[in-house]
Amino acid sequence: MAFDPRRILDRCHILARCSEQADGLTRVFLSPEQRAASELVTSWMREAGLEARIDAIGNVVGRYEGETPGRACLMLGSHLDTVRDAGKYDGMLGVITAIECVGDLHARGRRLPFAVEVVGFADEEGVRFSATLSGSRAIAGTFDLAGLDRCDAAGERVSDAARKPADVLAYAELHIEQGPVLEALGLPVGVVTAINGGNRFWIEVAGMAGHAGTVPMRLRRDALAAAAECTLAVERIAARSADVVGTVGRIEAYPGAVNVIPGKVRFSLDVRAPTDETRHAAVAAMCAEFDAIAVRRGVAISLTPVWDARTATCSPQLQQQLAAAIRAEGFSVHHLPSGAGHDGMAVRAIAPIAMLFVRCTGGISHNPAEAVTSADVGIGARIFARFIEHFEAPSR
Amino acid sequence: MAFDPRRILDRCHILARCSEQADGLTRVFLSPEQRAASELVTSWMREAGLEARIDAIGNVVGRYEGETPGRACLMLGSHLDTVRDAGKYDGMLGVITAIECVGDLHARGRRLPFAVEVVGFADEEGVRFSATLSGSRAIAGTFDLAGLDRCDAAGERVSDAARKPADVLAYAELHIEQGPVLEALGLPVGVVTAINGGNRFWIEVAGMAGHAGTVPMRLRRDALAAAAECTLAVERIAARSADVVGTVGRIEAYPGAVNVIPGKVRFSLDVRAPTDETRHAAVAAMCAEFDAIAVRRGVAISLTPVWDARTATCSPQLQQQLAAAIRAEGFSVHHLPSGAGHDGMAVRAIAPIAMLFVRCTGGISHNPAEAVTSADVGIGARIFARFIEHFEAPSR
Repeated sequence: MAFDPRRILDRCHILARCSEQADGLTRVFLSPEQRAASELVTSWMREAGLEARIDAIGNVVGRYEGETPGRACLMLGSHLDTVRDAGKYDGMLGVITAIECVGDLHARGRRLPFAVEVVGFADEEGVRFSATLSGSRAIAGTFDLAGLDRCDAAGERVSDAARKPADVLAYAELHIEQGPVLEALGLPVGVVTAINGGNRFWIEVAGMAGHAGTVPMRLRRDALAAAAECTLAVERIAARSADVVGTVGRIEAYPGAVNVIPGKVRFSLDVRAPTDETRHAAVAAMCAEFDAIAVRRGVAISLTPVWDARTATCSPQLQQQLAAAIRAEGFSVHHLPSGAGHDGMAVRAIAPIAMLFVRCTGGISHNPAEAVTSADVGIGARIFARFIEHFEAPSR
Repeated sequence: MAFDPRRILDRCHILARCSEQADGLTRVFLSPEQRAASELVTSWMREAGLEARIDAIGNVVGRYEGETPGRACLMLGSHLDTVRDAGKYDGMLGVITAIECVGDLHARGRRLPFAVEVVGFADEEGVRFSATLSGSRAIAGTFDLAGLDRCDAAGERVSDAARKPADVLAYAELHIEQGPVLEALGLPVGVVTAINGGNRFWIEVAGMAGHAGTVPMRLRRDALAAAAECTLAVERIAARSADVVGTVGRIEAYPGAVNVIPGKVRFSLDVRAPTDETRHAAVAAMCAEFDAIAVRRGVAISLTPVWDARTATCSPQLQQQLAAAIRAEGFSVHHLPSGAGHDGMAVRAIAPIAMLFVRCTGGISHNPAEAVTSADVGIGARIFARFIEHFEAPSR
């Protein structure tokens, strides 16, 4: 099996033209640009020998029958929507590579003991309605119909998109890493152990505002100094465990004047870990530290949870199969968690999941500077094709 | 001498009606509201036996001749402009109390061996043109004519407002403390040792943005974590010396998303101290610490100076005279620096300066909740009047 990485990259670039921005890439759920992208992907699927359709929520679904038609499938895929001012590979590389892998089987007239489906999910990023994974949740039958009140439009009978667990042997996704780990290790690909669960909070620190010139240090209850201590506690506690990450990404100090001691600060906290236990332990340690800071500084610190997602563990059997494919192509195997969320978080409701990460330049993603090398795209495609051809359904 | 604090407070409340806000107090330089306030003050000055006029920059200047007309004066005063959504006493209390003190001399037919002038400065806060102390600088002859390009209007011949050093024996100002020190000590008044000099900087931290889920803690160059360390260093270094204060009042993290590691942070730094030596030492220690943080974290930290004001030391002889007046009225003497800036910073160019602080509730100022007690206003007026009557020109 040899793949032409240029064709894969060319298709990523062609898809990137389906954008609401003239000078960059933004393609959101249920938009005219997404419709155009879906039609392109449908045509590529048909060219690769798949039967293609667009389901009730807008996912593009292509099917390549196995030796015996109508059997359960190995589902491959990734997403076709983007963040605002996005890169060209986040999502799309996985869909196009999967089509390419099936096209290679088709070109060789090869049928497998199982069907293969490729799905281009309609909404993973959740940019438009602030509800992520809508496409894969619909496939998993877990789409929250109550969430439809967020919509300014929606497909009819979303439940028609749902697939039965018996019909899907497994779900496998190729995706760029969106982080710097593989690049730092000098490896083109890696096997994902789990899609990290996460917690997000808004944290408010209430201290006492005052004149920056007239209140002696010993009489201050500075909300920003307290928030600074919290920020460093988050960093310190996260760094204790190799795969826990904790981030303060937003911060606002009030009243926010050069000559006024901040009386109130709001900041965000995002904590992720490959197991729910380590994540809960890290969050508990952070909260305990916040409490101690509040007592010591005479400020009030309150947390509002805004997001809580369980870890989605990747199937150990599928991890082994991916590892075997990597070794067979002559590369070292590295296992790593996915810090970012992916469609597998939803699909695991109906099937075991697996992910193959492809190295991306500088770990940069969600950014027009997102990049992959042609060599890595070719290696990723070969490994993914080998995995598909040697796939054995894991026990449930 | 007995003063009716109600009349002083009533006049503060009447002046507070000269406001551009219907539901609060905002009165800026060269506004119709300031013109109205100036006319009220002029009429009160005339009623108290002063010859009153409005000078070329808009200061209200009242003069009460001494035993021999035309002699040099003791200048009293404070400012008549306000910050936005201000309290009623910051500035105004000092002008009205000084008029009341002169009115008391006038009522008793008492002339002193020197003239007394009361000035209501037109622009101390600098809200309108971002240039503080315009009124007192004009009196001191240090008004920066180059700064006129900041103006949308200006009086003619600003230099006409300038006074000669030989005409002003000293400048004394009564002002609310705007801090919590006197309240914490249980004292109604205090003697100011110096108007603290200050430095302000904008500080930019350049790290590396990244996905909050995918970049391991060890590979991060988080600009906000670095800024948090800087904030705590400012607090720690300022707290080493009793009268140094350091404040981070504004902070902005970019891109400022919950799920993105901040790649850039901008924050403000304000450092003040009662001597230039301690202030420079504190700033140097902070800069050295920022450099160490930058090196350790692999970020770049750059400082842009935006303000640098030398300490204005109060005349030791005038401090002794204020202390004697406080003791004579039966109160303990406490000396303290002024963390906030005042008109004396400009007037000291032509005369020795002194300040008497009056306790304010909770140390709150630049806020509609600013408050003084009637008892403290009466005590302040008695002490200030005694100081005036026993004033002896300090050596220059």
